[in-house]
Amino acid sequence: APGVPRGRGCAGSREVVPTCERYAVRRLPFARLADGDVAFFERLMPGRVVTGEEEVKPFNVDWLKSVRGCSQLVLKPQTTAEVSQILRYCHERNLAVNPQGGNTGLVGGSVPVFDEIILSTALMNQIISFDKVSGILVCQAGCVLERLNEYLEEQGFIMPLDLGAKGSCHIGGNVATNAGGLRLLRYGSLRGTVLGLEVVLADGSTLDCLTSLRKDNTGYDLKQLFIGSEGTLGVITAVSILCPQKPKAVNLAFLGCQSFAKVLETFTTCRAMLGEILSAYEFMDEKCMELVERHLKLSSPVTDSPFYVLIETSGSNSTHDEEKLNSFLEQAMASGLVTDGTVATDDKKIKVLWGLRERITEALTHEGYVYKYDISLPVGKLYDLVTDMRARLGQSAKNVVGYGHLGDGNLHLNITAESYSHSLLDAIEPFVYEWTARCSGSISAEHGLGFKKKQFIQYSKPREAVVLMQQFKAMLDPKGILNPYKMLPSAP
Amino acid sequence: APGVPRGRGCAGSREVVPTCERYAVRRLPFARLADGDVAFFERLMPGRVVTGEEEVKPFNVDWLKSVRGCSQLVLKPQTTAEVSQILRYCHERNLAVNPQGGNTGLVGGSVPVFDEIILSTALMNQIISFDKVSGILVCQAGCVLERLNEYLEEQGFIMPLDLGAKGSCHIGGNVATNAGGLRLLRYGSLRGTVLGLEVVLADGSTLDCLTSLRKDNTGYDLKQLFIGSEGTLGVITAVSILCPQKPKAVNLAFLGCQSFAKVLETFTTCRAMLGEILSAYEFMDEKCMELVERHLKLSSPVTDSPFYVLIETSGSNSTHDEEKLNSFLEQAMASGLVTDGTVATDDKKIKVLWGLRERITEALTHEGYVYKYDISLPVGKLYDLVTDMRARLGQSAKNVVGYGHLGDGNLHLNITAESYSHSLLDAIEPFVYEWTARCSGSISAEHGLGFKKKQFIQYSKPREAVVLMQQFKAMLDPKGILNPYKMLPSAP
Repeated sequence: APGVPRGRGCAGSREVVPTCERYAVRRLPFARLADGDVAFFERLMPGRVVTGEEEVKPFNVDWLKSVRGCSQLVLKPQTTAEVSQILRYCHERNLAVNPQGGNTGLVGGSVPVFDEIILSTALMNQIISFDKVSGILVCQAGCVLERLNEYLEEQGFIMPLDLGAKGSCHIGGNVATNAGGLRLLRYGSLRGTVLGLEVVLADGSTLDCLTSLRKDNTGYDLKQLFIGSEGTLGVITAVSILCPQKPKAVNLAFLGCQSFAKVLETFTTCRAMLGEILSAYEFMDEKCMELVERHLKLSSPVTDSPFYVLIETSGSNSTHDEEKLNSFLEQAMASGLVTDGTVATDDKKIKVLWGLRERITEALTHEGYVYKYDISLPVGKLYDLVTDMRARLGQSAKNVVGYGHLGDGNLHLNITAESYSHSLLDAIEPFVYEWTARCSGSISAEHGLGFKKKQFIQYSKPREAVVLMQQFKAMLDPKGILNPYKMLPSAP
Repeated sequence: APGVPRGRGCAGSREVVPTCERYAVRRLPFARLADGDVAFFERLMPGRVVTGEEEVKPFNVDWLKSVRGCSQLVLKPQTTAEVSQILRYCHERNLAVNPQGGNTGLVGGSVPVFDEIILSTALMNQIISFDKVSGILVCQAGCVLERLNEYLEEQGFIMPLDLGAKGSCHIGGNVATNAGGLRLLRYGSLRGTVLGLEVVLADGSTLDCLTSLRKDNTGYDLKQLFIGSEGTLGVITAVSILCPQKPKAVNLAFLGCQSFAKVLETFTTCRAMLGEILSAYEFMDEKCMELVERHLKLSSPVTDSPFYVLIETSGSNSTHDEEKLNSFLEQAMASGLVTDGTVATDDKKIKVLWGLRERITEALTHEGYVYKYDISLPVGKLYDLVTDMRARLGQSAKNVVGYGHLGDGNLHLNITAESYSHSLLDAIEPFVYEWTARCSGSISAEHGLGFKKKQFIQYSKPREAVVLMQQFKAMLDPKGILNPYKMLPSAP
């Protein structure tokens, strides 16, 4: 989960090399935008058609400033009907389309590669309904995650997902990328919490599977195909999602561990002792802490540890929860698993401590260019990859850091350098993917494949699966106009 | 969730009318079984090929004795390679195949309609691996749910699902039908807990998506298409599933409520007060209790209530859990929500109380013919359907009862009669489906569509969705040999 502050631009103002120049990509034979096309869209949605190089520029560049497209047109529909008309037109005209939510993705999936028309969900930000008995929220795809969470908190509920980019990311983009984040350990993935979707397909037809039922076994679960499809199969226009009750008590423990083995043992111990109230188990290494302190001027109440652990509990009874947490902490301290630590129960201190973990991504962008890897591994081997990579790269990298959602077996491995270099990339890849494949891990736990990782899918999926995916794509989007150059390797 | 005892035969020994006679179904032009086919299978898997009318009979009839096929051949592969060879052969020969697990399905999906070859997973019952750190179990599809749970309990874990049929049902069948059951409220659906699948496709090719990772965002989540596909897209041969820790404390409260409104208010109250330890909220009406007492000679410690509620808590600290449960019960009693009740903490009493709820399905079979409906509805309207149906049918039905997973908005509506009658069916259907569709409910919450409900899919899914499902079916099984006549209405 990226630590994305509201707004943009923290990565400095250097120019980004166009993607098609940096990577050797060939433009597919889509039609080129003509004046008549722009005129059509102006008539369809007056005042919500963005042209002009400067105005379009922020939509062409990703948050990391690592990829850049050269679209000349951004469309901002407000309704599903408008999305449908846009796609029907583009489908007929063979114009490529790049669906875009909050543009907080980290794998180059959210911006165009060439001149794809950008379909932004920014103005599709209406809450459609919320039912306080069932906890089911129905809303348009462009609602910002943090806004939704604030709305729900007023009614005693929360969103089942949370991530650093919450201030910018859209729920539609979250679903399209199957975002994981900080609450997955407790509330499970979007594949369980998303109950229904409304999707506009490549030809402009609308698929209404926007049900609000906890259980429904009538036919294949089509919505699952769109969850995590990264805009390549359809444009998600509305979401129905099951929201948990707001916990009455939240506690945070921020701890220092002297080795990764102790991080692991602390996890096993706290999972057993905290049980159903454990809602997050995050870790970061001392390098991460150093960068957060240096670049963002944050300071940690716990110091001098090679590893830091953040444990959150969420429950319905503060007395019980504190009892559980205290007896866990006593045991962890007594047995030497943890050498230093602090506990927070008030909102403000909790936010400050979470900031140390959530803002690592942001701190990293101050380092220069960041090579980002988001790996699922058997939890016992999680940090070996960081150690091995650090040894392999030696002085050629500025920093090699590891952090992530340990409770989910999800490592964020980040390597920084002053600027992008092909030779450093060659030292990292495919080594990192081969290492992961040997452990039967996933080369993208939660970030998706987007543009940057699509050619590595075979490290995590067998050939038969990739072929099947390509068949699904061909069936649902025969002209390939939806988010081309993304997620899947080009068809043979 | 059906209350299926181990073994078979509880529904009496009356002959079942063949499905193709009772319903006007036309056999599709598949090849007919020839002596050479049987000889081929005998060579492939000697001793595991079942022929002979009497031997095949139990595989031809469903547990409810409501549908009956006329297959002449049952195959019992032990390995994925054998399943692959069977399907490759059948695909080439154009022979239809009926995949079968524990044959506990309630919608006629698990037995043939005509002479489909029955592919039984009965001998694919090996546990492949279990990892105590992650709680991830990998096993063959034919493992019996209860056996898996017993195996896991020895290691301090449990299966994330539980249902009345646990003594017979296979995990592969559970996944193929996206079984819900008694723990869904707490651990979520199989769409979240199933991490990977191995599936043999219609042409015999094997799709290996048997990963053991909590998070993996590399391409479309193909396994989701097979979860709940009822054997129509492929044969599930192995499953990787995330198992929760065995709770240290389990408590049960069995309560009587004087109205359905109080059942609902009790639910809202207990959800708020029990929070994260609530693991089941089931209800049954007094008619259900009457049948369980009459036919199974069970007796309830709580009596004289129009509704009964079963609340289960599962947690990591028995003192805390009992405190939460007691303060909830005090409030529920004091405010008159609940008039009578009993609490159980020891295993034996817990099992006895669960039996009252779990064995309703079994009790119903003693009544004669049972018309079964498994409906998702907004929880507030859940019982209105039972009341309306009772008024509509009057004396023409023997009993109209309602029970189910209230916490999930899932009603089991059951109507009994001495024997099957077309006219009673016409009084029930499509009324029940129209009623459900008006409330935007689902006509099958967890049982699936199988043979009996497939023509009603349009009450819960729009036409566009059904067309898309048919396209997936045509793509993955172009000859339509896998579980034909099931789940989807025939292609136009």
